[in-house]
Amino acid sequence: MLSSLQRALPLLATWRGYDRRQAGHDLLGALLVSLLLTPQALAYAQLAGLPAEAGLFASILPLLAYALFGASPGVALAVGPVAILALMTASALQPLGLSGAAYGAAALSLTLLVGLLLALLALLRLGFLANFLSHPVIAGFVSGSALLIAASQVRHLLGVSAEGHNLPQLFPALWAQLPASHGPTLAVGLGSVLLLVLLRGPLPRLLQRLGLKPSRAQLSNRLAPLLVVGLALLLSALLQLDSQGVRVVGAVTAHLPGFSLPSFNPALLLDLLPSAALIALVGFVESISIAQSLAARQRQSVQPDRELFGQGAANLAAAFSGGLPVAASFSRSAIAVDSGARTPMVGVFTAALMLLVLVLLTPLLRLLPQAVLAASIIVAVLGLIDLRSLWRTWRYAWQDGVAQAATLLGVLLVGVEPGIVIGVALSLLLFLWRTSRPHIAVVGQLPGSEHFRNIERYAVVQSETVLSLRVDESLYFPNARYLEERIAELVAARPAVRHLVLMCSGVNLIDASALDSLETIDARLHSAGVQLHLSEVKGPVLDRLKRSDFFQRFAGQVFVSQYAALCQLDPQTAQQALSR
Amino acid sequence: MLSSLQRALPLLATWRGYDRRQAGHDLLGALLVSLLLTPQALAYAQLAGLPAEAGLFASILPLLAYALFGASPGVALAVGPVAILALMTASALQPLGLSGAAYGAAALSLTLLVGLLLALLALLRLGFLANFLSHPVIAGFVSGSALLIAASQVRHLLGVSAEGHNLPQLFPALWAQLPASHGPTLAVGLGSVLLLVLLRGPLPRLLQRLGLKPSRAQLSNRLAPLLVVGLALLLSALLQLDSQGVRVVGAVTAHLPGFSLPSFNPALLLDLLPSAALIALVGFVESISIAQSLAARQRQSVQPDRELFGQGAANLAAAFSGGLPVAASFSRSAIAVDSGARTPMVGVFTAALMLLVLVLLTPLLRLLPQAVLAASIIVAVLGLIDLRSLWRTWRYAWQDGVAQAATLLGVLLVGVEPGIVIGVALSLLLFLWRTSRPHIAVVGQLPGSEHFRNIERYAVVQSETVLSLRVDESLYFPNARYLEERIAELVAARPAVRHLVLMCSGVNLIDASALDSLETIDARLHSAGVQLHLSEVKGPVLDRLKRSDFFQRFAGQVFVSQYAALCQLDPQTAQQALSR
Repeated sequence: MLSSLQRALPLLATWRGYDRRQAGHDLLGALLVSLLLTPQALAYAQLAGLPAEAGLFASILPLLAYALFGASPGVALAVGPVAILALMTASALQPLGLSGAAYGAAALSLTLLVGLLLALLALLRLGFLANFLSHPVIAGFVSGSALLIAASQVRHLLGVSAEGHNLPQLFPALWAQLPASHGPTLAVGLGSVLLLVLLRGPLPRLLQRLGLKPSRAQLSNRLAPLLVVGLALLLSALLQLDSQGVRVVGAVTAHLPGFSLPSFNPALLLDLLPSAALIALVGFVESISIAQSLAARQRQSVQPDRELFGQGAANLAAAFSGGLPVAASFSRSAIAVDSGARTPMVGVFTAALMLLVLVLLTPLLRLLPQAVLAASIIVAVLGLIDLRSLWRTWRYAWQDGVAQAATLLGVLLVGVEPGIVIGVALSLLLFLWRTSRPHIAVVGQLPGSEHFRNIERYAVVQSETVLSLRVDESLYFPNARYLEERIAELVAARPAVRHLVLMCSGVNLIDASALDSLETIDARLHSAGVQLHLSEVKGPVLDRLKRSDFFQRFAGQVFVSQYAALCQLDPQTAQQALSR
Repeated sequence: MLSSLQRALPLLATWRGYDRRQAGHDLLGALLVSLLLTPQALAYAQLAGLPAEAGLFASILPLLAYALFGASPGVALAVGPVAILALMTASALQPLGLSGAAYGAAALSLTLLVGLLLALLALLRLGFLANFLSHPVIAGFVSGSALLIAASQVRHLLGVSAEGHNLPQLFPALWAQLPASHGPTLAVGLGSVLLLVLLRGPLPRLLQRLGLKPSRAQLSNRLAPLLVVGLALLLSALLQLDSQGVRVVGAVTAHLPGFSLPSFNPALLLDLLPSAALIALVGFVESISIAQSLAARQRQSVQPDRELFGQGAANLAAAFSGGLPVAASFSRSAIAVDSGARTPMVGVFTAALMLLVLVLLTPLLRLLPQAVLAASIIVAVLGLIDLRSLWRTWRYAWQDGVAQAATLLGVLLVGVEPGIVIGVALSLLLFLWRTSRPHIAVVGQLPGSEHFRNIERYAVVQSETVLSLRVDESLYFPNARYLEERIAELVAARPAVRHLVLMCSGVNLIDASALDSLETIDARLHSAGVQLHLSEVKGPVLDRLKRSDFFQRFAGQVFVSQYAALCQLDPQTAQQALSR
C-alpha cells in the first residue's frame, strides 16, 4: 500500500532519510531560486502578453504539483514560467485577436490543453515522440526564439507599440515607431541593459580578480536581475516615473491563486490544439534535457514517462490557478543545484516563498517600469543564442546543418510554430533521403585473414565467380528500390559471376518492402544464372525472415560469415587469400 | 548533335535497327491494346465523372508524348487512363461542387498540375520521393481503392444516383436508393457482370482443357470486356434500351482532340495542388513499378528520372487535348509485351488506332449502356484486391501490417487521399518508433575465435573489466537519447567495469544529435571512472568523426576490431578465450 503510494507520489520517497542538513540546503536553494524567479515571473508574463500576476500564479501551485507527482528523487528541477514557452504562448494567442479577460481565459485554455496532452502522453507511454526533435532542430529553435524574443521586447525599451510574431512584421513596425520613442523610457531601458551586462560579465571577473571565490563572484551574475529591479523600483518611486509617461507594471492583484476554471469552448480548444501540442513537446524536451544533465551530475537516473507526468501535472495546476504554460528552467535549476539543493522539496519551499512574494511584495512591484523587465528578458535570452553550434553542425554533416539553419530562419522569418514544424519535417526528409541511397560496398578478403573489406579502401582478394556485397544500411522502404537497381548494375558489369553473397552485418532491419525487393532480386538473379546468398544475418533479422514464407522460395544459403560463404562457393580463392 | 537529340527523344534510338518483323509485333500489340483500351477509356472517363470523349482523348496524344519523351528503349509501356487515377480525379473534383463544362475544365487544370509536378520532379531529379510510398502502403491503397471503385459503380448497375467518396457516404445512399432500382438496367448490368466473370475465369480454363494453347485460351480473358461491350451494343440497338430508361453513354463528340487550354484560375489551381501531388506520386509509382518489372523480363534497365519526365509529358499532353490524368496500365502493358511488342512504337500505333476509333466508332458507342461499363470496371478492379498480402505483411512485421491496414481502412472509410496520407505518415512514424529503441547487445568472445557474439544467444567469454556493447542501428536523432539511458543502466549494473567498448559494426551513420550524445556519454562515463572506446567503426563514419572536433575531447581509442580492443584492454581474458 505504502510502496504503491510512494510510486505514485515520488515526493514521499524523498522524506525517508530527509534530515535538517539537506533541508537547509534545499531552503537556501529555494531562496536563491525565488530571488531569480520573481523578476522572471513578471517578465515572462509580460512576454506572453499576460498581466504580471499570471507569472506569479504560475510560480506557486505548479511547483507543488510537480514536486508531488513528477520530480525524480535526488533531482531538484526548478519548474515555472520560462521565456520560450511564454513566446510560444503569445504567438499562439495573438492570431485570435482577443484582449483583456478573453485573452487571459484563452491562455488558461491553452495551458489546460498542454497539461492534458502531457499527461496523456505519459499515460500512453509516448515519451519517445520527443525524440523527433533532433538536437540541431532544438538548437536552431532555441537560438531563433531567443533572437525573436529579444526583438519583441525592443518596443518596451522604446516605449512604443509594435506587434508581430516574426522579424518581417516586427522590424518595419519598430522602424515606423522609432520617431515616437519615449525618452525617459529609453533611458531607463538602456540603463538597465547596460547595468545587467556589467553585473553579469565584467563585475564577476573583476571580483574574482580581487580575490573572491568564483562561486561568490558568480552571485553577482545570478542576482543581477534582482539588483536591477530593486534599483529601478527605488528610482521609479523617487522620480515618479509613471507620471512622466514611463509605462509601469501597474496594480498586481494580490489575492491568493484561487481555483479558476479555464473556459471550455470546444471551437477555441480545437483552434489551440496544434499550438498546445508544440508547446507540450518543446516544454517536455527542454525539461527532460535539463533533468538528465542534472541527474547525471548526481549519478541519478530520470524516468522520462514520470517526468512527462510531472510536467503535465504542473501545467494542469497552472491552468486551474490562473497561470501560463510552465516547464523546467535551466538557469534556476542550476542555481538550486549549485547551492546544494538535492531534493524535490526545493520546489515546495520555492512555492511557499513565492506565495510570500505575491502577498507581501506586490504593492511594491506596481511601480516597476516595463522597460526594466524588457531589459532583463533581452539580456537573459541573448545568452541562449549559439551561432557557433550552427557552424559546428554544418561542418559535421550538412544535412543536420540545413535542418538547424532552416529551423532558425523559419522561426525568425515565419514564426516559432512554423519554424519548428519546418525543422522537424526537414530533418525527417533529409534523414530518409540519406538512407534512400545506402552505402553498398563490394568487399574482398583481406590477405592472411578471414576478414572482408571494401575493395576501394583495402588491397583485398576478390573471387571471379563470387560477388561479395556489403550493405551498410537497414533494408527498408526508402531504399528498397535502390537496392534492386544497384545490384542489377553490379551484376551486369561482371559476366563471370555465378554467386552473389549479400553480407548483412550492417542490416539491422528488413521491412516488408525490402522483403518484397529481396524476393524480386532473387528471382531476377536466378533467371540470369546467378544464385543469391546471405551472410552474417543478425539474429533478430533472421528470426523474422524465418517467420515469413521467404525461405520457401529462396534457393540460396545463409552463411554464418562471409568467409564461410567463400570457403564453400569458391574454396580455392578463400584458401589462397588466407595463406598469402 | 544527333546523339544529344537521341538522348532527349529516346524514340529516335528505337529507329536504329527497327525492322519489319519488330514493326509487325508492335502493330499486333497495339491492336490488342486498343481493343482493350476502347471500353476502358469510356469506363474510366465515367469513373472520373467526365464525358466519354475525355477518356478517348486521353488515349491519343498522351501516348505519342510518352513515346517521344519518356519511353525506355525495349520497354513497351502502355500509358493512358487508369482506374485508380480516375477515382482520384473524381474525389479531387467532387468537393468543388462543379458540373458540366466547369467540372471538365477543372479536370484539365488538375491534369495540367499533375503533368507540371511530374516534369518538375524529373528536372530536379527528385524521383526518390516516390520511395516514401512503401510496398505495404501501396498494397493497402490499391486494394482499398479497388473496393471503393467497385462500390462507386454499383449505382450504375442499379440505375440510380448515389454519390460519395467513401463507404460511410456511399452505403447509406445506395441503401436509400435501392427501392428505386431500375429493372432493365439491373438486368443489363448483372448480366454483363456474369458474362465477364464467365469469360475471364471458367471459359479460358475450359478452352485450355479442350486443347487450346494457354496463350490463345487467355485471349478470351483479355478480350472479354470488348466482347461484352459489342454484345451490349447489339442488344441495346435491337431492344432500344435507351427509350426504356436504361442510361446510355450518349452522344460522343467525334471531333479530333484539339488544343484546349486548361483554365488558369490561381485559386482553383491552389485548391487542386495537394490532390495533384498525390495523383502524380501514385501515377509515377505505379508506372515505374510496371516499367521495372517489364524491363527485368527483357534484361533492360529503367531510368526513373526519364520515366518521370515521360509521365509528365503524357499528362501535359492530356491537359492540352481535353483528357484526364494518365499513367501506365499493367493489364494493357502486359498484353502488349505478351504479343511480342518491344519498342515504344507500340504507343505510336495505339494512338493511331485510337484516333480511328474516335473518328469511326463513336456513333456506335452512343447506345452503350452505362451499366455495362460499370460492370466491366467492377470485374476489372476486383482482381486488384489482395487481402492475402495484408495477412502476409502482418505476419512478417506488425508495423508494416498496421500501415497497410490503416491505408486500406483510411481509403474505404475516409477517402483515397486521406487514406494514402494516413498510410505514409504512419509508416514513417512506425519506422522511427522502431529505430528509436535500437537493439543493443552485450557481446562476448566466442571461445576459440576472434568473433564476438550476443551473450544471450551464445556461450561466450566476458571480461570483468571491459564491457563490450554492440549497437545494431545507426545512431541518429530518434535513438540518441535512448543510447544515453541504456548505457547508463548497463554500466550502473556492473561496478567492476573500467572500459566500455562500443562495437560499431552496425552503425552506418552518426548524425549531429548522436555525436552530441556520444560526447555526453563519454563525459559521464569519464567522471564515473569508465573510459569509452569505439571499435569496428566503418570508413565513412570514421571519416566524418575525424572532420569534427570529437577526437579533440575523446580520450578513448578506436580499435580496428573488438578482438583488438580486448587484446589491449584485457589481454588475459582475450588470450584465455582464444585458446579454449
